[in-house]
Amino acid sequence: MRERLNFWVIGGDPRQATLARALNEDGHTVHTYALERGVEPPLRADSLAGAAIADCVILPLPAADGEHLNAPLSDQRVPLVQILDALRPGQLLCVGRAAPALKEEAEKRRLRLVDYFAREELAVANAVPTSEGAIQIAMEELPITLHGSRVLIIGAGRLGKVLVQQLKGLGANVSVAARRFDHLAWAQVWGCGVERSDQLDRWLCGYDLIVNTVPAPMLNREELSGLKPGCLVIDLASKPGGVDFAAASELGVKVIWALSLPGKTAPVSAGLAVKTVIYNILTELGV
Amino acid sequence: MRERLNFWVIGGDPRQATLARALNEDGHTVHTYALERGVEPPLRADSLAGAAIADCVILPLPAADGEHLNAPLSDQRVPLVQILDALRPGQLLCVGRAAPALKEEAEKRRLRLVDYFAREELAVANAVPTSEGAIQIAMEELPITLHGSRVLIIGAGRLGKVLVQQLKGLGANVSVAARRFDHLAWAQVWGCGVERSDQLDRWLCGYDLIVNTVPAPMLNREELSGLKPGCLVIDLASKPGGVDFAAASELGVKVIWALSLPGKTAPVSAGLAVKTVIYNILTELGV
Amino acid sequence: MRERLNFWVIGGDPRQATLARALNEDGHTVHTYALERGVEPPLRADSLAGAAIADCVILPLPAADGEHLNAPLSDQRVPLVQILDALRPGQLLCVGRAAPALKEEAEKRRLRLVDYFAREELAVANAVPTSEGAIQIAMEELPITLHGSRVLIIGAGRLGKVLVQQLKGLGANVSVAARRFDHLAWAQVWGCGVERSDQLDRWLCGYDLIVNTVPAPMLNREELSGLKPGCLVIDLASKPGGVDFAAASELGVKVIWALSLPGKTAPVSAGLAVKTVIYNILTELGV
Amino acid sequence: MRERLNFWVIGGDPRQATLARALNEDGHTVHTYALERGVEPPLRADSLAGAAIADCVILPLPAADGEHLNAPLSDQRVPLVQILDALRPGQLLCVGRAAPALKEEAEKRRLRLVDYFAREELAVANAVPTSEGAIQIAMEELPITLHGSRVLIIGAGRLGKVLVQQLKGLGANVSVAARRFDHLAWAQVWGCGVERSDQLDRWLCGYDLIVNTVPAPMLNREELSGLKPGCLVIDLASKPGGVDFAAASELGVKVIWALSLPGKTAPVSAGLAVKTVIYNILTELGV
Repeated sequence: MRERLNFWVIGGDPRQATLARALNEDGHTVHTYALERGVEPPLRADSLAGAAIADCVILPLPAADGEHLNAPLSDQRVPLVQILDALRPGQLLCVGRAAPALKEEAEKRRLRLVDYFAREELAVANAVPTSEGAIQIAMEELPITLHGSRVLIIGAGRLGKVLVQQLKGLGANVSVAARRFDHLAWAQVWGCGVERSDQLDRWLCGYDLIVNTVPAPMLNREELSGLKPGCLVIDLASKPGGVDFAAASELGVKVIWALSLPGKTAPVSAGLAVKTVIYNILTELGV
Repeated sequence: MRERLNFWVIGGDPRQATLARALNEDGHTVHTYALERGVEPPLRADSLAGAAIADCVILPLPAADGEHLNAPLSDQRVPLVQILDALRPGQLLCVGRAAPALKEEAEKRRLRLVDYFAREELAVANAVPTSEGAIQIAMEELPITLHGSRVLIIGAGRLGKVLVQQLKGLGANVSVAARRFDHLAWAQVWGCGVERSDQLDRWLCGYDLIVNTVPAPMLNREELSGLKPGCLVIDLASKPGGVDFAAASELGVKVIWALSLPGKTAPVSAGLAVKTVIYNILTELGV
Repeated sequence: MRERLNFWVIGGDPRQATLARALNEDGHTVHTYALERGVEPPLRADSLAGAAIADCVILPLPAADGEHLNAPLSDQRVPLVQILDALRPGQLLCVGRAAPALKEEAEKRRLRLVDYFAREELAVANAVPTSEGAIQIAMEELPITLHGSRVLIIGAGRLGKVLVQQLKGLGANVSVAARRFDHLAWAQVWGCGVERSDQLDRWLCGYDLIVNTVPAPMLNREELSGLKPGCLVIDLASKPGGVDFAAASELGVKVIWALSLPGKTAPVSAGLAVKTVIYNILTELGV
Repeated sequence: MRERLNFWVIGGDPRQATLARALNEDGHTVHTYALERGVEPPLRADSLAGAAIADCVILPLPAADGEHLNAPLSDQRVPLVQILDALRPGQLLCVGRAAPALKEEAEKRRLRLVDYFAREELAVANAVPTSEGAIQIAMEELPITLHGSRVLIIGAGRLGKVLVQQLKGLGANVSVAARRFDHLAWAQVWGCGVERSDQLDRWLCGYDLIVNTVPAPMLNREELSGLKPGCLVIDLASKPGGVDFAAASELGVKVIWALSLPGKTAPVSAGLAVKTVIYNILTELGV
C-alpha cells in the first residue's frame, strides 16, 4: 500500500467520522462529504468535485438508506447515483453491505466496487464491540454480578468465541450450546460447560443469562418455559432473530434483541476496524 | 453453625431483601421488619414482638439514617433505640457500619454487637460488584471497547486486584500505579505494566481510562493536565476521593465519582455476600 | 447411541489401554487383543474369536506398523489382514490414520471403515496435549520463566489457538505470525502481538521462544540468523517440518522437533479423546 | 539510585552470574569473585582487593555453606570472614538469607547488612518460578493434561495465588483449601472451588493433583488415605514440609517435595529478580 493516498469518505455515522480522522492522522489526504456534524472543516468538502481523482472512495455501513446515501450526520439528502456519477470508470469504491441495485449501478459505470462488510476480518473485529455491548446490557439489566453467574452462549462461531473469552474473563461460569461435534470440542478446550443445542429444552433452568448468536429459531416456547425466573435473554442474531418474542412476552421472559451494536457501543473502535479492512483491501489490490 | 436458626432482618434495601429470602431458602426461620416493599408477606412481621428470641438480629448497611433505621423499602420511620429496646441482653446483633452512638447504645443494653462491614471477607466479596460497576460505567461512557484499550488502575489493594483481573479478562491493556515495592512486584506477576504512583504526572498521557482506588489525593491539577483528550477518570475512593474535582472540571476532564456500587449494580450478589459473612460470624461464635 | 455395546479394542499404546478401560467403566462390554501389557486380564482376549459380533472394532492410532498391527504393548506380531479376516461384512471398524492399503482391504471385505483420526473434533481435542507437551519442553529447556517471556507462535490454526490460550494463561507475552487477514484479526482479539508471516526475517530478534505450527518452510537460514542468542525453537509441524534444521545446527540455534506429543505427554487424556470421537461416530451412525 | 555504581558480586550460582551480567549491561561497574564458571573474564576479579570501594557488595542466596561462601561455580573455598575482612565499615552488604552468625560478624565490622531474601517483593517475584517449577513437575509426572484436570492448592498466600493464576491459565479446574474466611473469599473471587483446610480428609478423592504451600502438617495419613489412585502430591512447603512422607510411602501415594525451585528451573529470571530487589534497596537507602 502506498504511504500517501487520496481518500474520500462519503456519508455515515460516527464510525465514518473516526475513519476519516484516522486516515488523516496516518498522513493521507482525506475529504469527506455529507459528514458535516462528524468532522471539522478542514476535512469537509462542499461538493463531490474532486472525488473522481480519489485513490479510494468509501461509503458507509450500511451504504444506503433506500435510494439515498446513509448520512445521519448530515442535513443533505444525497441520491446514491449522484455519488456514482461523480466517479470515473475503474475507480475503487469501498462499500459496507452493498445492495444488489447499488452493485448494478456501480457495474454500469465500471467502478471497482468492494463490499468491505463481507470481509471476514471485519466480522472478526466487530465481534469485540458486539460482545462488549451485550455485556454492558447484561450488567445494566441483571441484579447480580456477571462474575460467578451462570451464562449460556448459543453458538460457537465468531461471536460465540469472543463472548466466551470476555465473559470467562469477567469470571462468569460459561456454557456453550452447539450442534457440531468440533464446536463442542472447542467449548471444552475453552473450559466451558457444553450443551447440545438440539436438546436445549431440558437444560436451561440453571442459567442467569442466555446470549443467542444463531440466526435460527433456538429459543421457542418450549425452551423459554423452562427458564429460571429472572433469567435474561439477549438475542444478537440478525433478523429474524433466534427467539420466539411473542412466547417470551407471554411467559414474562425478558428478551433484549440487540442489533448493530458496534456502531452504537464503540463507534471509535468500529471505525478503526473499518480503517484496517480498507488498508487490507488496498494491500491486496496493490494500490 | 446450627442448621435451623431464627433470624430477624430489620430495615435495609434490596440487599437485605435478598438476604432475608436467601436465609429462608436455606431453611432458617426468618422475620423481617421495615422491609415491606422488599419481601412477600409470609416473611413480614408487623411489629418487633418476637425479635427478642432471635438467634441473630441483622441491621442493614449502613444501619442508620441519622437516629433512625435505614429503611428505604419501608414507609415506617423507626428510631434505632426502639429496635434495641426490643432485644434482650446478650443477644447477637449484626450491623453494617455501626456508628459510635449505636455501639454505645448497644453496649448499654449489653447486646453482642458485631459490625459485619468491618469484616475483611465482605470487603473482598464487595470488590467484585464494585469492579463490575466501574466496568459498566466505562462501557457506557467510552466510545471505544475496553478490549484493546489502555487502562491505569491506581492502587493494588483488594479493589485494584479485582479490577486488574476483570479488565485483563476483557482484553484491556492494564497498568497499575503503586508505591510499595511488593505491590509493584504483584503488578508484574499479574502481567501488568507498572507505574510509580509518586511519578504519575509524567506518564498519564497514554491512557484511555484511569480508575482510582486510593483514598488520597492522587490526581491533582498537574496529573490531570497531562491526560489524553477523552480519557475517562473513574474515582472509586471513599470520601474525600482521590481526584481534584475542581481542577478536572476546569480542564474539561470527565470524572465520575462512583461510591457504594455493590448495592446499586448488583444488590442480589451483594446481599448474598452479607449472608456468607453472617454465617461466618455465627460459625466463629459457635452459634 | 445404545447404552450397552460390545467393543473390541485391538493393538495400540497406553491410549488404547485407557480407551478400553474407560469404555468398560461406562458399562460397555470390552475385549482387547494384542494389548496385554496395557490392561488387566478380565479385558484381555486370547484370540480374535468373538470379534465378529462386536458392535464396533477399534484399531489404534496409527493402525499399522507396516503390514502388521501397531501393538507396542504386546509381544504378538499380528498381520492386519488377519484382523480383517476375523470380522464380518458390514461391521464397523474405527481406525486411526488408515493407509490406502488398509482401506482397500477393508473395502474388499465390505467392512464399514471410519478413520477417526480424520475427525475435526479429535484434532481439536489433541491440540491440548500437544500444546502442553510443547510448554513442558519449553519449561525444561529455558532458563527463564514462561511468565513474562516473549513468545512467537507461527500459525493461527487449531494448535496455534490453544498455544496462545495456554501460554497467555501462564503469563507469557505472546505474538502470532500469520498471513491471512482474518487470522491476524483473531490474533488481535486474543490480545496478542501480530507479525506478518511473510516478513518474519525482520522481527524475530526479540523472542525467547518460537513455536512453529505450520507444515511449510517458515524458519529458513535468513530467519534463523536473526534470532536472539538462546532463543529456543520448537517445531510442532508434521513432516517435513517448518525449520531448516541444517541451517539451525550450523548457526547454533537449538531446535526441538516434537511430533506425536499427545500419546507421549498425556496418554490418558488422549485416550479419553478417542473415546469421545468413537461415541460421536456411533451417534452419527445411529448405532 | 545513582546511574553508575560499583558492584561486587561474590560467590553464588547461575542466578548470581545473571545478576552480574545484568548489572553490567545496565551500565554499572561490576566485579565478581568466586564465580569463575559463571561469568567471562572481564567481570572476574582475582582477589578481593578493591571490594572495599564498592557501593554495594552482594553475597549469594543462601550466602553461606557452613562457614564458607556458597560458591558452586568456583573451585575456591572462601571463608565468609575473609570476605567481611576485605570490606570497610559502613559499606553496604546485601545478603540472601543471612544466618545469625554472619549478621553478628557483619555488625562487629560495622557493615550495613541487608538481607534481600527477607524482602517481600523478592518473595512475590520468586513465586512465579516456583509455580512454573511445580507445573513442570506435574506435566512430567501426570499422564493427563493439566487442562481439564482437577487440582487442589493448599494455601492462599503468595505462592497459592500464583499457582491459581497459572493453573487456571492452563485450563485446570482449581480449588483452594484455606482456613481464613478472607482467603476463602479470595478463592471465590479467583473463580476457584473452595475447601476448608481443616476438613480436608473428606473431600480429597476428586483431585488429580494436590499442591501444598503451607509449612504445617496438612496431609497426614487420614487425608492421604482418601486420595484418588494416581493422584500426584507436590509439596512446596519449606522444612519440615506439609506431608507425612512415611505414610504416603506406605500408602503408595507419589509425593514430590520440591524446594528451592527458582534457582533450579529459571535461574535467569530468578537472578533478574534479585537485581530488582537490589535496586529497590539502593533506592530506599538513597545510594
